[in-house]
Amino acid sequence: MNLLSIDDLDREAIERITDHAARFAEVSDREIKKVPTLRGRMVLNLFYEASTRTRGSFELAAKRLSADVVNFAADGSSVEKGESLKDTVLTLNANKPDAIVVRAPWVGTAELVSGWTDAAVINAGDGKHEHPTQALLDVYTLKRRLGKLDGLGIWIVGDVAHSRVARSNIVAFQRMGAHVTVCGPPTLIPRGIEALGCDVRFTLDEVAGADVVYALRMQHERMADAPVPSLREYAACYQINERRLTARQILMHPGPVNRGVELSGGIVDSPQALITAQVQAGLVVRMAVLYTLLSGPRAQAPLPEPQLA
Amino acid sequence: MNLLSIDDLDREAIERITDHAARFAEVSDREIKKVPTLRGRMVLNLFYEASTRTRGSFELAAKRLSADVVNFAADGSSVEKGESLKDTVLTLNANKPDAIVVRAPWVGTAELVSGWTDAAVINAGDGKHEHPTQALLDVYTLKRRLGKLDGLGIWIVGDVAHSRVARSNIVAFQRMGAHVTVCGPPTLIPRGIEALGCDVRFTLDEVAGADVVYALRMQHERMADAPVPSLREYAACYQINERRLTARQILMHPGPVNRGVELSGGIVDSPQALITAQVQAGLVVRMAVLYTLLSGPRAQAPLPEPQLA
Amino acid sequence: MNLLSIDDLDREAIERITDHAARFAEVSDREIKKVPTLRGRMVLNLFYEASTRTRGSFELAAKRLSADVVNFAADGSSVEKGESLKDTVLTLNANKPDAIVVRAPWVGTAELVSGWTDAAVINAGDGKHEHPTQALLDVYTLKRRLGKLDGLGIWIVGDVAHSRVARSNIVAFQRMGAHVTVCGPPTLIPRGIEALGCDVRFTLDEVAGADVVYALRMQHERMADAPVPSLREYAACYQINERRLTARQILMHPGPVNRGVELSGGIVDSPQALITAQVQAGLVVRMAVLYTLLSGPRAQAPLPEPQLA
Repeated sequence: MNLLSIDDLDREAIERITDHAARFAEVSDREIKKVPTLRGRMVLNLFYEASTRTRGSFELAAKRLSADVVNFAADGSSVEKGESLKDTVLTLNANKPDAIVVRAPWVGTAELVSGWTDAAVINAGDGKHEHPTQALLDVYTLKRRLGKLDGLGIWIVGDVAHSRVARSNIVAFQRMGAHVTVCGPPTLIPRGIEALGCDVRFTLDEVAGADVVYALRMQHERMADAPVPSLREYAACYQINERRLTARQILMHPGPVNRGVELSGGIVDSPQALITAQVQAGLVVRMAVLYTLLSGPRAQAPLPEPQLA
Repeated sequence: MNLLSIDDLDREAIERITDHAARFAEVSDREIKKVPTLRGRMVLNLFYEASTRTRGSFELAAKRLSADVVNFAADGSSVEKGESLKDTVLTLNANKPDAIVVRAPWVGTAELVSGWTDAAVINAGDGKHEHPTQALLDVYTLKRRLGKLDGLGIWIVGDVAHSRVARSNIVAFQRMGAHVTVCGPPTLIPRGIEALGCDVRFTLDEVAGADVVYALRMQHERMADAPVPSLREYAACYQINERRLTARQILMHPGPVNRGVELSGGIVDSPQALITAQVQAGLVVRMAVLYTLLSGPRAQAPLPEPQLA
Repeated sequence: MNLLSIDDLDREAIERITDHAARFAEVSDREIKKVPTLRGRMVLNLFYEASTRTRGSFELAAKRLSADVVNFAADGSSVEKGESLKDTVLTLNANKPDAIVVRAPWVGTAELVSGWTDAAVINAGDGKHEHPTQALLDVYTLKRRLGKLDGLGIWIVGDVAHSRVARSNIVAFQRMGAHVTVCGPPTLIPRGIEALGCDVRFTLDEVAGADVVYALRMQHERMADAPVPSLREYAACYQINERRLTARQILMHPGPVNRGVELSGGIVDSPQALITAQVQAGLVVRMAVLYTLLSGPRAQAPLPEPQLA
């Protein structure tokens, strides 16, 4: 059982994971936060992109569940020695891990990996393609705040073209009953994205109609071909700030924020921003994903009462 | 409860930590050295400077206490992506760690971090400012050798200006009843350092009066503005060697030693050098610090009998 | 007790380790693969060369045995700060680890390290010299396939001169009763290698007489002085492929493979290739080595029935 794409999960599966996450959130309020659920299990982190947040979040999630974790980073010897991705994965698989968490700059990496291993494979971001645990933690965060997503209007604003978060979240939000609109400069909105079922806007003129505004990070490092004339101009047209957001609207962002670019500094720290809640959700949602993938049939049954480690 | 500066600790608190360390040193002589004291606790190492010794020492200390450890290194993605220190810490804090161990090249980093997290923050070195666990392990080492520091004359020799060790140790040694003299070339002694209560000498002429000589490492990498004409000239005037140290005097150094610069090779290996004892003290003192900060009120009570893991 | 060279082990010791490995292989087929054998023990990985495979294999082996692991990588601060190998090891030793696993580009590193520590030292590769756990896993793999090595003819083909694998395997295979022939271009066969008891051939003309063909990796990165005119020419003369290998012969390779250089792509995936089995053997053989070195006298006795963690 893998988590390669948010498309792998129907609404019921998403509900089940977010329910598990809520249970783990209760455990996280105890003094001892570790549970023995995955004792004896081995999780490998295979990261071909540096990522303090996501790698750390998966490592912490696995350790809180009492699993062992071994990290493999891309700048290791395998790339130097010209070892292919396939050979690396076959080598890792020979150690019979229970799960492999993969992040890579290449679209489809996690899916390729899943063909070469018996371990559960979790896509922790594959290029511009997908980042399903981000979508799950965003759904979880919205459910905690609003109870449900049905009927919500959610605007996803910014660099949709380079965003794996956007791609996973459009699918997840719609599957949970929300209506999604993507908004950004034409150079940053992929042609034909309407095929995913969302609306497209090139200005923020109608953003007042949204219940939730989900701002994307400007990925400087991926913008080699300069799709916007300048960050200043981008901010002038698309920055979410106190002037554009009304008090009843909710703000989300996958982090880390470029203050003064896609968001104003003030709005980041306002009570309507769920950004901190999103980060907190990362740990418990990833615990829930590991639990669901690694506890086998039991994961269909109610979550066992967590015991103190 | 944090350990940001040696100034946070009065004499009684220092005594308590070194007493705990002595208990852990007994455990370290057993075949199984691990104790379950901090089982279920999570320690994050946040290192913005490479440091094999200190990072490893904290990681080992935490694991010997059965805590889990997750390492975050500075050369990770957060710096690349322009993530601010604050955002990084808020993200880490969202995972509800029990302790964050911070090393950074910037003065005051640990204190800043402590404002953004509920975890216990331990300063593992902040620029030229402080390195409180080094001071604690040096006090512990001297107590083990001499019983107490009261009335001792301690000379701290060398690059005082660039040394966080010097700054923490001047305070700690004096708090434990010693009299401290700092000695080095005028370019490497900060003006006004007498305000800390120590004497200042610019030559080793009177070093024979010292009970303990604490030589500092020459920090080549921090000496961009060439405060001494050459290492050869520095060594001629300030090197501690067999000629300058009498057999009754004790030698200390925070490591790693530049043999032939601040110390002669022979003196490093002499029985009057406590350098190896200092290194050994690092582990048990850091165990004692983690124990004191993370066991809450119990840390005031006698240390529980360590059980085999 | 150390494992510095395959020469440290007589035939009986090799048999004992491979028997232990077979026991651990049974455990690896269970759902929970972790055993409590080395609970409370501390293993340090000291790697002065990047190595995803070997470092990961030792880390996994130690964790499956419930030991704790701390990694020290070469690109850390110690090299930057000019810390000597000796100082580094003395520092690590002060923490009283149970085992230190060492890889370094310098011949004799593990042996040097063993002089500075009371921990068990395991050589995980020292320059062009030795890689004893690779030899053990290769012996184990052949025993699993063929029952024994006595009387086998084994050809080791390729870049013998730069290969620590070749040096360890020539000794190990012979000690187990096999007859070894090394084969490669004269520039890649060290003069006087016959002194180890093996035959030498400069062409593959007689390779049909071998029971096992062990192809070595072409170490591009070590071939600064261009000992072969081109990889194309090398492949023409020495590549093991479907044309040169008969169906009854067994193929081995230490990985990672340069497909199209020392091996054809097709032969890598053929049933006569034991390459995947070799990789799988790495974990259980390293578990057996850690068990043998760290369980003390008990390691001479039968392996205790592994309990679930």
